[in-house]
Amino acid sequence: MVVVSGKELKKEFDLAQAQASVGEVITFRACVHKVRGMSGFSFVVLRTARYLLQSIYTDGECEGSLEGIREGCYVEISGRVKAEERAFNGIELALTKITLLSKPAAEYPLKVSQRRLGCSLDVNLDNRTVALRNPYERAAFKMQEGLVQGFHQFMQANRFTEIHTPKIVAQGAEGGANIFHIDYFQKPAFLNQSPQFYKQAAVAFFDRVYEVAPVYRAEKHATSRHINEYIGLDFEMGFIDSMYDVMAMETACLRAMMEYVKAHYQPEIKILGAEIPEIGEIPSVTFLEAMEMLRGTGSAGKKFDLDPEDEVKLCEYAKEKYDSDFIFVTHFPSSKPPFYAMNSKEDPRVAYKFDLLFRGLEITSGGQRIHDYDEQVEKMRAQGLDPADFESYLESHKYGLPPHGGLGIGLERLLMKLLNQPNIRQASMFPRDINRLLP
Amino acid sequence: MVVVSGKELKKEFDLAQAQASVGEVITFRACVHKVRGMSGFSFVVLRTARYLLQSIYTDGECEGSLEGIREGCYVEISGRVKAEERAFNGIELALTKITLLSKPAAEYPLKVSQRRLGCSLDVNLDNRTVALRNPYERAAFKMQEGLVQGFHQFMQANRFTEIHTPKIVAQGAEGGANIFHIDYFQKPAFLNQSPQFYKQAAVAFFDRVYEVAPVYRAEKHATSRHINEYIGLDFEMGFIDSMYDVMAMETACLRAMMEYVKAHYQPEIKILGAEIPEIGEIPSVTFLEAMEMLRGTGSAGKKFDLDPEDEVKLCEYAKEKYDSDFIFVTHFPSSKPPFYAMNSKEDPRVAYKFDLLFRGLEITSGGQRIHDYDEQVEKMRAQGLDPADFESYLESHKYGLPPHGGLGIGLERLLMKLLNQPNIRQASMFPRDINRLLP
Repeated sequence: MVVVSGKELKKEFDLAQAQASVGEVITFRACVHKVRGMSGFSFVVLRTARYLLQSIYTDGECEGSLEGIREGCYVEISGRVKAEERAFNGIELALTKITLLSKPAAEYPLKVSQRRLGCSLDVNLDNRTVALRNPYERAAFKMQEGLVQGFHQFMQANRFTEIHTPKIVAQGAEGGANIFHIDYFQKPAFLNQSPQFYKQAAVAFFDRVYEVAPVYRAEKHATSRHINEYIGLDFEMGFIDSMYDVMAMETACLRAMMEYVKAHYQPEIKILGAEIPEIGEIPSVTFLEAMEMLRGTGSAGKKFDLDPEDEVKLCEYAKEKYDSDFIFVTHFPSSKPPFYAMNSKEDPRVAYKFDLLFRGLEITSGGQRIHDYDEQVEKMRAQGLDPADFESYLESHKYGLPPHGGLGIGLERLLMKLLNQPNIRQASMFPRDINRLLP
Repeated sequence: MVVVSGKELKKEFDLAQAQASVGEVITFRACVHKVRGMSGFSFVVLRTARYLLQSIYTDGECEGSLEGIREGCYVEISGRVKAEERAFNGIELALTKITLLSKPAAEYPLKVSQRRLGCSLDVNLDNRTVALRNPYERAAFKMQEGLVQGFHQFMQANRFTEIHTPKIVAQGAEGGANIFHIDYFQKPAFLNQSPQFYKQAAVAFFDRVYEVAPVYRAEKHATSRHINEYIGLDFEMGFIDSMYDVMAMETACLRAMMEYVKAHYQPEIKILGAEIPEIGEIPSVTFLEAMEMLRGTGSAGKKFDLDPEDEVKLCEYAKEKYDSDFIFVTHFPSSKPPFYAMNSKEDPRVAYKFDLLFRGLEITSGGQRIHDYDEQVEKMRAQGLDPADFESYLESHKYGLPPHGGLGIGLERLLMKLLNQPNIRQASMFPRDINRLLP
């Protein structure tokens, strides 16, 4: 019988503490990132969870030998801290002790200790568990954490309740063929395409809700902007006057997320050379205005939606005219999905639906939703859907919903554009596409 | 063209502000929870996202009529605040204006405005989107939010990096038949049984990681303690000396979560009558010690695992002897899964694996994992597994992992026991079991 008090926790390496310890010996555990032998001494670069540190091993001055210690070993070291401007993070360690904790069975198949891996994306993804040991590669996912934490903090500060909704469902929220089928105890079931139905149901009792969770789309085409499993940052808010309340909330939310990242993720911003946008006002054009502008620039007007080239051009326009990395497009044709988008009261040919584009790519769809039962049933019929197929969903409307709206942000798309990555797979730790199930 | 500044956000109802506004008129939006007509006036109970508020409508003193306004309507009201000790939250509103925002198409099928719904669990779950409008029912999920936010805050403070890993996988992490099959573009795929493989991979580059995400188990038996989709609070930490480092981290984490809930969720604690445990030291017994104790109390010693009755008895023992709602059980037989549990160096018949029991139920499995490639391959073979089937997983070991361990907490089980609920379905907003895919 023993007791566990949880009072003495193992500490992670602390850079500020190390930097404040010049002249002292510090001890910590890390990965051996690189060893470079010189005459009589060796440079040993250590990799902690966020930082690289340079240390010097001198024969005869260090307890424990460097022999057998190579790239990929995990070690405990003690070293005297020296201020050294040229070193990473301004300090260098003169090793006084090194102990091997674990060692790899093989050499890395990638050049992990280079600044950039320098391999193709396919090789990177095939060897993902190794690729992410490269400081540049892993930094993207530290930034991803910052975006999600910033989202949580903004949502909590604005009294959204975090919810968790099922991903195994009897019916997809977005319709169409882009849905994965599951064998659920011999019953047909699906992986949810969005938490839409559940978010709306929850607005009835929590007013404002949000969720951070995987979303599944069985898109068959392999593009640089689609993956089949992604993280949705979703929210839904009751008691709105119009979809502009939702757009205002998103604007404030993205601003807070960017500020959070800037406040807490400077090491990664530097490693990645990321340009974090200043979000002031975001311009907003209607779909019709966008179509007119695009025709003016030579692009063919599309009838129901924007295509990727349109998104690029609209963002160029927003950057030029408003110095904004973002632009909203509103009032899409009402004949187009989703069936839960409220039609405009002024012009029922368009719906209170918006997209948000960021640096040339749609990162959000949102809008005001229908809250009235009869109005929802009617719109389903107008789109050729049978309300009987949506009996469970419609219970929320039947028993009452406040006027409400919401949106979903694709986390990987946001990160991809934040880092100016050409392919969304770079913004997913372990991406899933039509060809990729491993690792 | 308009611009969205996000500078003026719609505010949620603020109780403290309302309580500080005695004598003044306040305006907010809410759901009509209950209307009780008296002679010449009516009591109107309003439901905001977290609170109930009593208001009084007096004919001739309120702009807008109560006519047509009934339970389930959403309204905007203005009312003068009066201190009233007998009312919910110590204030009462004399309505000066009421405006209908939306109304239901039908009456609630459940008694939402009663303190407790008073229906069977099946009726509750069949009408879940209505049941959750009951303040007692919804409060459980506000508490759930508190647990998750407390987990995030503790993890962030202890420098764990939040990760997001795929749930669609080529291979389940826990083996066995309890796994859901997906049709993934005509290729076989599965829903992951835990983020285990990915957490371990990430320890190689982030040292400490955590994830809050759905976990899938195709358990065929319908018990009061199993659901098929649940939320896992998972973490994994590198550079441990033993599994006791993981247990210490969990002890501190649960303590922080309980403190977070107590600091921020008092309204829900009161509504639910929840007893939030004080976590001091948690006693820990080995599996062998537990078996001896259980034999002593008349329970048959099991060879490889605890059964539900054992868990109840061990918790009774912990409560009696240590006044603890929790007890760890360690050193389970090494022949038992999981294959990634490190065998004891002192006695290879047992593994460095632990369970944490809370009020009679296992809420966590964890342990020290194997980090050495050869040791992992050997243990797979000893358990009758073919290492070739785990090639992708084994790449993490092949290229080096620090000594590490971790665990997974079942969020619904933790919440269920925190609220002393008899059935885990009550602790899931929209539970999935062998018979339930809706709502």
